[in-house]
Amino acid sequence: MTNELLQTIFSRRSIRKYTTEPVSKADIQTLLEAAMAAPSASNIKPWHFVVVTERETLDALADAHPHGKMLSQATLCIAVCGDPDLSRYWEQDCSAATENLLVAAAALNLGAVWLGVHPRDDRIDFTRRILGIPETIAPLNLISIGHPAEEKEPRTQYDEARVHRGGW
Amino acid sequence: MTNELLQTIFSRRSIRKYTTEPVSKADIQTLLEAAMAAPSASNIKPWHFVVVTERETLDALADAHPHGKMLSQATLCIAVCGDPDLSRYWEQDCSAATENLLVAAAALNLGAVWLGVHPRDDRIDFTRRILGIPETIAPLNLISIGHPAEEKEPRTQYDEARVHRGGW
Repeated sequence: MTNELLQTIFSRRSIRKYTTEPVSKADIQTLLEAAMAAPSASNIKPWHFVVVTERETLDALADAHPHGKMLSQATLCIAVCGDPDLSRYWEQDCSAATENLLVAAAALNLGAVWLGVHPRDDRIDFTRRILGIPETIAPLNLISIGHPAEEKEPRTQYDEARVHRGGW
Repeated sequence: MTNELLQTIFSRRSIRKYTTEPVSKADIQTLLEAAMAAPSASNIKPWHFVVVTERETLDALADAHPHGKMLSQATLCIAVCGDPDLSRYWEQDCSAATENLLVAAAALNLGAVWLGVHPRDDRIDFTRRILGIPETIAPLNLISIGHPAEEKEPRTQYDEARVHRGGW
């Protein structure tokens, strides 16, 4: 069983091709519950999630993000946002929540890919504009999600050179 | 099966009490493989991992970190570090790797807790000093790990108020 559980972590790959089948409401709920099961500094939970399933909005994001073409095929996008006024750790906390969401997507046999937004000003600007996000809130990323139309093998990218034992 | 896989995400809780049983080399390897299965911007993988099992070093970290007392019981600490020269997304990438490590710990029936280091200068300083980390490398956190001596229920902290549908 343990190996099975771990396998989900390794099966999370960046999936950029999707079928037209929508992501169910139940799956969207599970993705959000997984994201909000992440730890956060002092349990402040400085996160917000903008859930987009409208074709027009998905297409606008696809046009605006330089690596976001796949959003024109995706049936779901979740923008993970942080509130920097709440915590200096917002970027770390929201990234942990994002990774939970991505692993949960793999567990649900969905495909997803993380598109970076913060700290690039141009990407922050169009994300705020298209999604109506307030000036005080920092959009961290756009997660493009759908039922996968491509397959990738589970993997680690383990590199012993990045491991330092007993100290650097 | 899917529910079982997801359950691991919800069973990851902050565990601060440990038995004296060491974490096996095989489990340490799995934790590192899980961490390095995380996505990173442009697949740059701007991370390093300092693995500490020496009692003296664990105790030094326990003394230095204001919330790190549990490290004096922990049999393992992994400091996740980033290389800011490699990627402006290093903090996000290393946080995703950390969350993978924490979920893998839960899957292995280990207990772990994330102790924040970056961006607090004083914590960065003592972490660099105790672990011999170069000036160009940013220690993001200390992950305290051991065999759990406390139990916590799986949970989400789902909050509908943090969900914005169709736009903010």
